[in-house]
Amino acid sequence: MNQYTEEEIAAIYRVIRERRDMRHFVPQPVDAGVLTRLLEAAHMAPSVGLMQPWRFVRITDTALRYELHRMVEAERVATAKALGEREEDFLRLKVEGILDCGELLVAALMDGRERHIFGRRTLPEMDLASVSCAIQNMWLAARAEGLGMGWVSLFDPAKLAELLQMPTGAKPVAILCLGHVTEFYPAPMLELNGWTKRSSLQDMVFQNTWENTKSPL
Amino acid sequence: MNQYTEEEIAAIYRVIRERRDMRHFVPQPVDAGVLTRLLEAAHMAPSVGLMQPWRFVRITDTALRYELHRMVEAERVATAKALGEREEDFLRLKVEGILDCGELLVAALMDGRERHIFGRRTLPEMDLASVSCAIQNMWLAARAEGLGMGWVSLFDPAKLAELLQMPTGAKPVAILCLGHVTEFYPAPMLELNGWTKRSSLQDMVFQNTWENTKSPL
Repeated sequence: MNQYTEEEIAAIYRVIRERRDMRHFVPQPVDAGVLTRLLEAAHMAPSVGLMQPWRFVRITDTALRYELHRMVEAERVATAKALGEREEDFLRLKVEGILDCGELLVAALMDGRERHIFGRRTLPEMDLASVSCAIQNMWLAARAEGLGMGWVSLFDPAKLAELLQMPTGAKPVAILCLGHVTEFYPAPMLELNGWTKRSSLQDMVFQNTWENTKSPL
Repeated sequence: MNQYTEEEIAAIYRVIRERRDMRHFVPQPVDAGVLTRLLEAAHMAPSVGLMQPWRFVRITDTALRYELHRMVEAERVATAKALGEREEDFLRLKVEGILDCGELLVAALMDGRERHIFGRRTLPEMDLASVSCAIQNMWLAARAEGLGMGWVSLFDPAKLAELLQMPTGAKPVAILCLGHVTEFYPAPMLELNGWTKRSSLQDMVFQNTWENTKSPL
């Protein structure tokens, strides 16, 4: 079995550690070859029953990009209101980089998913799990290539589906901002901005039963 | 900005390409230090509003491991029936390695998620997206470390939640089989076994509107 070298293993942990959910971009085009490699990385993700439910809509039309921006802005305001006492904290955050990023993509669940039962009879949402793995592949590959990516989920999926002329049953799950950045945040932006803290791994791992944290590792 | 070397970039694409959803394991313990590194990798995943909704239950009790196996076997039979004309094809597949894998983990969505509105007002399922990114991190790190991992979703989530004494609102989304393997499949197992084929990337990428595949890349 082809083992990975120590350097290869270190590179993989490095990119996992250094990947960031980016909101600040430099308005500069993304090389077409790099974009293709990133989408190939996404397409190599695991999927439940090998259903490959991911679809990507590349937004190259400028008017459409502005439409997406308006859509996210409307949801940003609606979210702020729903947050109540944290409304002001939230409104201070930069939540998207739609107008600045070099490439804008929408990731969606394909239509016709109800035909796929394998691994989904009791957990139909496994299709989203597969799309998420694809996006994570892309995120890591982008970081290695020196490009930032941000996953924006502040939008009304029905309205975005209509805007991009998606068929019944398809559903957008991510607006992906991809592009050049001046620097990557040294820690998650929401931690740097005091929105919340990162938890300790110890609080995330149990043994045999929920909240049993006696020597789980 | 610290650029990645060509070797580092190649390592990241290599692991993305060589990661497999494994069902065949060698019954041999997983080193505790490696397990911790893999869970740390999971915990470095992005999460919507930095909510970190992932929880991992490490199954070290043998009787519990057998219970999980019985639960998956029951769902395997139920899925086979639901598949109709592909019932026989499905029953020939190996869908889990629960009794053989060195480490067995259950990944779950934490309870109390309804309090997290950031990025989830219109898309509450973003919590699952975050857990999936965490699992993908773990999957890639495991592959680099020479360990196989399989995501099993053939189970009744309510019954598994009860078995592991999960509180109301928590939900198991994956039984993760992790362990040593004799070899990694050269292609997805479901492709090798003729269950389905991998699609072409070109069929996954559109431009501006759904199914518009005119020069999307």
